[in-house]
Formats: sequence, structure tokens, C-alpha cells
Amino acid sequence: MSAERNIQVQKKVLSENDQLASKLRTEFAERGILTLNLVSSPGSGKTSLLEATLGTLQPSLRIGVIAGDVQTDNDARRLQAAGGTIVQAITTGGACHLDASMVTRATEQLDLEALDVLFIENVGNLVCPSSWDLGEDAKVVLISCTEGDDKPLKYPAMFRRSSAMVINKIDLLGLSDFSLETVKNNALSINGELGIMELSCRSGKGLEAWFDWLHRSLKQKRSGR
Amino acid sequence: MSAERNIQVQKKVLSENDQLASKLRTEFAERGILTLNLVSSPGSGKTSLLEATLGTLQPSLRIGVIAGDVQTDNDARRLQAAGGTIVQAITTGGACHLDASMVTRATEQLDLEALDVLFIENVGNLVCPSSWDLGEDAKVVLISCTEGDDKPLKYPAMFRRSSAMVINKIDLLGLSDFSLETVKNNALSINGELGIMELSCRSGKGLEAWFDWLHRSLKQKRSGR
Repeated sequence: MSAERNIQVQKKVLSENDQLASKLRTEFAERGILTLNLVSSPGSGKTSLLEATLGTLQPSLRIGVIAGDVQTDNDARRLQAAGGTIVQAITTGGACHLDASMVTRATEQLDLEALDVLFIENVGNLVCPSSWDLGEDAKVVLISCTEGDDKPLKYPAMFRRSSAMVINKIDLLGLSDFSLETVKNNALSINGELGIMELSCRSGKGLEAWFDWLHRSLKQKRSGR
Repeated sequence: MSAERNIQVQKKVLSENDQLASKLRTEFAERGILTLNLVSSPGSGKTSLLEATLGTLQPSLRIGVIAGDVQTDNDARRLQAAGGTIVQAITTGGACHLDASMVTRATEQLDLEALDVLFIENVGNLVCPSSWDLGEDAKVVLISCTEGDDKPLKYPAMFRRSSAMVINKIDLLGLSDFSLETVKNNALSINGELGIMELSCRSGKGLEAWFDWLHRSLKQKRSGR
């Protein structure tokens, strides 16, 4: 098969995905649900951030999570323990990203009327998830202080398409060559609009700013701004 | 397009890849080159491990590197500084893995006669690269002590198809909940044959065992075992 034919096939699959994502977006909007697509490398701390968020903000904010995992239900079990409404979406055929049809199936198991915020925890991967619209209001990209601070330059599509960047594991700053200033400059050079938060899910430092950002984003969504 | 049709298309693309990979494998075998496909999450330290390896083993071992990157030439530039013969393979269309055609094009820029070991530094991603044969003798999967120790369970295909697992950043052990024992048990439960090495590219601890493994693997390859 020629590369051109393969690209055509991919385009068709993506366009079908976009139609499904658009239906999801309408459904979330009608119910005033803030939907966030959480993306990162494996191990940056998506599940830890969700644990901390569920543990603190529930039940005053009613939070649902669609936990994407290639193979296990480890994340779903961790989140179940932290509270919240968890639905697991194991990717079909071990795919490297969630798509809108998986999210559609997962939402059918959720009582959307009972939710304020829906997190979609994507598969750990900085490449493929950037291309797949899941009907979210925003992508939030996590990066941890133990990765390279050039990640925004190496995976620009993900940082360009995200609304916020959460820098996790700041308790480990200074133990590697990672520079907060460099990662922020790199990220802003790709996307000048990116909201940036620094925190440690382990120590709890900086989590308040993240919670504020969530409350503010929900408010903006509901006031239609 | 139906999911079935999409799967058929993917199968055809993979089978064409396997044919190219098989040609590469023959070519590397004829020249006695040990070829290793280095895979990991973004930020686990593939480039750092290669820097340390080039810095120490060159020129007594003649090492080439095909550095895969989605977008930048950051890794290729770091490796150039460390010595060795570096060819960059930026993935076509920002793909999330290298394929055998990219490696074929990259090898055309290398003097294979002048190499003992060829590293293929794959794109940082624990999912997709596991499916694409690049003609390598072995996959080596890196994992760092700041990721989750359940990674082998979450990304089993990658650990099943790897011959060795390098646990990097052991200088950061104890600063998170990562347990060496747990990650090893998890990895061995997926693949009982996995060779395991623990090291820190930053402190240098454990690098000797990795260098020994490289020398031993090259010797085995050349003695046809």
C-alpha cells in the first residue's frame, strides 16, 4: 500500500472521529459539564493528580473520570478508591490513544446529569492523543520535573493543542537538569496562550492553584464565556 | 470506514514493514552489527544512556545511532557532541514510532562497514513502537525510577517483546513510591527471560553492567549463538 493511500485512510478515520467528538461536545455543553482531556507521557502523574483532585473537591464538585488504559484496570482501581464516578475505557486492540467512539461508549455508562466535571484520562503518550478530538473543552498536558525540559519542543502538537500545562513533581526539582524556566519558555514558544501551573501531587504544594483553575474553568463554561 | 476495514489496512502496512525489516536484519547480520532498538516513555533517559555509552565505549567499539525524533534534532545534536556516527530520522508526518522504511533510509547515510553496534533510538512512546519491527537483534526498554512501577503491566506488549529492561535514575530511588522489587516482579511476570539492569546515567552507578551486557551481546551475535 502506498504511503498516500495510507494517509487517505487515516484522514477518513480522523474525520469520522471528529463527527462523533462534535456530538459529544454538544451533549456535554447541554448539561454544562466541563470536560478535560488529560494527556502526558506514561508516568507523569495523571492518575495521582486525579486522586488528589477527587479526594479534595468531591462531593462539592461532582466529578466523573473516564480512565483510559491499554491493558490493566490499575488506574481505574486507584481512582475508585479516591471516590468519584469512574468508568474504564480499555483501548480497543491496545491502541495508543482514546478515540471519540471509546468515549461515547464510556459516557453511556455514566449518569451525565450527576456531573459537573468529566476528566478523560488519556493513554500515556505525547504523540497520538494530540490528533484525536474527544469532545473535550480543553486538553491539559502534564509534564513532570524528572522528564526533559525540551519536551514541548519535541512534541509541539500536544503543547499547541493544550490549554493548560501542569508541571508535576516539583518536589524533585534540583535533582536533575530539568529547569522550570526552560520548560516554561519552551512551552510558551509553542503556545503563548498556555496556562501554566506547578505542583507536587506528593507534597500537595501548588494543588490549590490547580483547584482554582478548575473552578474558574467550570464557571466560565457555565457562563458561556 | 468500518473498524474491520481499518484493521485490514493496518495489517497490510505492518506486513510490508516486516518484509523491509527482514531485509535490514539480513544486512546487519552479514556485517556482524549488533542492532538494538531502544524504546521507552518520553523522558526515561534514552539519549542520556546513549551519551554515556558513546562517551565511554568509543572508539574501541564503533557505534552508530539512528536518532528518531518527532520534530526536533535535539537528541541528534546531543549525541553528535558525545561522538559516534549519528543519523537522524525525523518521523514522517510526526508519526509516533519509527518504521523499517525510515530505518532503511537512515542506514543509507551510514557506513555500515565501519560499525560494531547500531542503536536505533525510537520515539518516546511505550505503545506503538512495540508493533514495528526495525530489523533489530533486540529491543531494550528503559524505565525510570520516577515513573510508575506498574508500567510493565500497563504496557505488556513492549516488555514482552524486549530482551532487556534498563531501570534508569536509580539515584532518585526513595523519593517516590517507585519500588525496584515491584517493577522487577511486574516485568518478570510479563517476560521471564528479560535481562534487567539498574543504573543512573547521572551518577554513573551501574553503567558497567550495561557496558558488559553490550559487549556480551555483540560477542554472542558474532559467534552466531
